[in-house]
Amino acid sequence: MKIALLGGTGPQGRGLALRWALAGVDVIVGSRNAERGQKIAEELSERLGKAKGKIIGMSNADAVAQADEFVVLAVPYAGHRPTLESLKDSLHEKILVDVVVPLVEDNPKKVSMPPEGSATEEAQAILGESIPVVGALHNVSAHVLDKTDLPVNCDVLVCGQNKEAKDKVIALVEKLGVQAFNAGLAVSARAIEPITSILIRLNISKGTPFKHAGIKIWPESFCRF
Amino acid sequence: MKIALLGGTGPQGRGLALRWALAGVDVIVGSRNAERGQKIAEELSERLGKAKGKIIGMSNADAVAQADEFVVLAVPYAGHRPTLESLKDSLHEKILVDVVVPLVEDNPKKVSMPPEGSATEEAQAILGESIPVVGALHNVSAHVLDKTDLPVNCDVLVCGQNKEAKDKVIALVEKLGVQAFNAGLAVSARAIEPITSILIRLNISKGTPFKHAGIKIWPESFCRF
Repeated sequence: MKIALLGGTGPQGRGLALRWALAGVDVIVGSRNAERGQKIAEELSERLGKAKGKIIGMSNADAVAQADEFVVLAVPYAGHRPTLESLKDSLHEKILVDVVVPLVEDNPKKVSMPPEGSATEEAQAILGESIPVVGALHNVSAHVLDKTDLPVNCDVLVCGQNKEAKDKVIALVEKLGVQAFNAGLAVSARAIEPITSILIRLNISKGTPFKHAGIKIWPESFCRF
Repeated sequence: MKIALLGGTGPQGRGLALRWALAGVDVIVGSRNAERGQKIAEELSERLGKAKGKIIGMSNADAVAQADEFVVLAVPYAGHRPTLESLKDSLHEKILVDVVVPLVEDNPKKVSMPPEGSATEEAQAILGESIPVVGALHNVSAHVLDKTDLPVNCDVLVCGQNKEAKDKVIALVEKLGVQAFNAGLAVSARAIEPITSILIRLNISKGTPFKHAGIKIWPESFCRF
């Protein structure tokens, strides 16, 4: 399996690249700047040891072309629409995994949701119905992803219009060692994306032990332990 | 402390009444029908044993009049606006704790958010700025609340415009034996309220152990255990 990770040079992208490669997935780190993509891929590769997955870097467009099915979008929100519009024609037969949260640039305790309702819905509107968009991994802390000697401390809520694509993304996400749940149609992204800014608020205001907190779906039965 | 619980005869209201009374809080169960309020209060009281808190029942209007500070609104969404409009004039000097989620009546896996963005924001718009509205307890399972021999399996996200009122509500919620967090301004209710329908979806589709699941804010450090 070879996945493209667009915006893979940012903190979230780098952490996801490491975690997936450690799980045996080949990752193509895409960047607007191919050289920067290569440089970051080399840096990340040094941390992989004997991992089965490889990390290579190139331009976003080349990364999409070489991905076999999954294209993960992890750019800052400002790059969300431009990246999708420029790559739209090459995304046929792919599944777009949208990790982007519309955080307010200078105040990540807030979101500014797009007119479509959420980034995931905006992506689906840009790409059209024939390219499935699946929202996932919005609430995972980049800091936690980077500490690869520890497990990831959260569950992942996955949403989108296409059930088959969602099931595939759930399997891809679970390679990271987390539980992933089908959280319904794309409209659920209106709830899931802003959870990130609530967590960032707790990170800032509460400090330890709520720095880099995640969310867990907690069974009733766990009360008994 | 004596709190009013409007719509306290429904499943969520009954469970909250029990839990608060067991924690030593006096609860006035309000209902559109005073006799029904009394009857449910009597039924609940039989389950209290030697609890310090008492449960009594009356009309919603009388319940508001007798509450010393907190008025908790736990009606079905169809009653949200009518209840607030009819009681608005008697809510001065109170704090309105809004538990209501705009679930679609015949499909609780979906929400239908009001034009204001969320039930909490709608309540604040109806009541005006002088009466603080605090959203809380949206995601707690009525089934879990009712099983009073077990702890409640979730954390509670609290939001609203008025920091002082939020701090008071956080203390009130924590009497239930749960952790409560300041999740920011009322706009956060746009994320928090629909989490309930995501949990209901998991309840239906996943079954055990995810029936009656809740959400937990999960510290990074808990990975180490």
